[in-house]
Amino acid sequence: EIREAIAAMIGGGPLAGRHVVVTSGPTHEPIDPVRYIANRSSGAQGTALAQALVELGAEVTFVTGPAAAPLPDHVRLVQVETAREMADAVQAALPADVAIFAAAVADWHVEGARNQKIKKTPDGAMPALEFAENPDILATVSKLSDGRPSLVIGFAAETEKVVEHATAKRARKGCDWILANDVSDATGIMGGSDNAVTLISDAGAEAWPRMSKKDVARRLAQKIVDAFADETRPKG
Amino acid sequence: EIREAIAAMIGGGPLAGRHVVVTSGPTHEPIDPVRYIANRSSGAQGTALAQALVELGAEVTFVTGPAAAPLPDHVRLVQVETAREMADAVQAALPADVAIFAAAVADWHVEGARNQKIKKTPDGAMPALEFAENPDILATVSKLSDGRPSLVIGFAAETEKVVEHATAKRARKGCDWILANDVSDATGIMGGSDNAVTLISDAGAEAWPRMSKKDVARRLAQKIVDAFADETRPKG
Repeated sequence: EIREAIAAMIGGGPLAGRHVVVTSGPTHEPIDPVRYIANRSSGAQGTALAQALVELGAEVTFVTGPAAAPLPDHVRLVQVETAREMADAVQAALPADVAIFAAAVADWHVEGARNQKIKKTPDGAMPALEFAENPDILATVSKLSDGRPSLVIGFAAETEKVVEHATAKRARKGCDWILANDVSDATGIMGGSDNAVTLISDAGAEAWPRMSKKDVARRLAQKIVDAFADETRPKG
Repeated sequence: EIREAIAAMIGGGPLAGRHVVVTSGPTHEPIDPVRYIANRSSGAQGTALAQALVELGAEVTFVTGPAAAPLPDHVRLVQVETAREMADAVQAALPADVAIFAAAVADWHVEGARNQKIKKTPDGAMPALEFAENPDILATVSKLSDGRPSLVIGFAAETEKVVEHATAKRARKGCDWILANDVSDATGIMGGSDNAVTLISDAGAEAWPRMSKKDVARRLAQKIVDAFADETRPKG
């Protein structure tokens, strides 16, 4: 890894000259100054991906929500809190050769989040929260007519019918690859160090064995290297 | 501190023989397997309190939500996630001489939290969330007719009219003391290392200067020592 890090710094590696945007971590959507809606993403898979890409020479812009996992080194770091901030940061980071959306982005935010702490009322009722949809970062970037990255990769954290849901998601969003995983409680994947993913692409669904998040990252990074090699290889 | 820790271990210190229950950290209220409602408590003030009490010889049961701050040493540790779990853990930890409720407990939980991840609908609408009130741990313990701790101390994290709200909270809950603080964004207290509190008691409101959370903890621990000394001192 040291050799690769040095190679990356002096400009070597199969991804040298490639700019990759990686999103990572959860987003936090404020309800009021002290409360927010969060999700269980630790950011560990995103950090591992950024690290693997840097080791192969890529220039990585790492757009991260408030993650518990350590942040990667040698990246351009952009720290955000909400999905809307993440969408803006991704937009600002383009153009890129590859975009990998590993963050667990909230689908909704609380409309009109309060400036003051919500107090309990005498009857104990919770003030109604109104939700508004967040920007769909994966679909937006996948469907860019101008400046779309060559390779757009999404993640699908599912708790049931993993391949079916992820395949539908890939078609709906218009991305190239989806890494789908099962985050049911029983798997221990959310917040754990292992991951068990299925790569969904034009070629169908490829189930990878359960392995560390670092190994998932290395394998995906290698797939990206291969994809660019195929692209530049003379036909026939 | 080493001297005090050793004194505590061999049973010395002014709080030797006293059992103190301290709650700390945020609670997380699940929405579905991947989403939850959280709050910005780091648990730093609770950890500092537990540490200060241990140093004075107290036996501390530390009931904590998923906190970012390091956990205290030499305590009986009980880790919980939701407000309902915290209420049960506090109940199980009694009897105690003192109860200090420093956790930022969610007032509500999501009724009927989903077992499967909530999916976006084609129209982007968020499924309605129904909220139910959480048990009020501070009020419940303050109003125990049997086995109430001699000293029940609450916290009030406010964003406006701090003393007014906290004084009303003290009366409503029936606790002995309230440590009130202003957690508006501008103060930087939520998640920071300093705190600026006002102690509300029968004697009125006593504003403490802004100091580290460790110093707030030491000062409160000393107040507790003094309260027990007054109690046992012969009248007149």
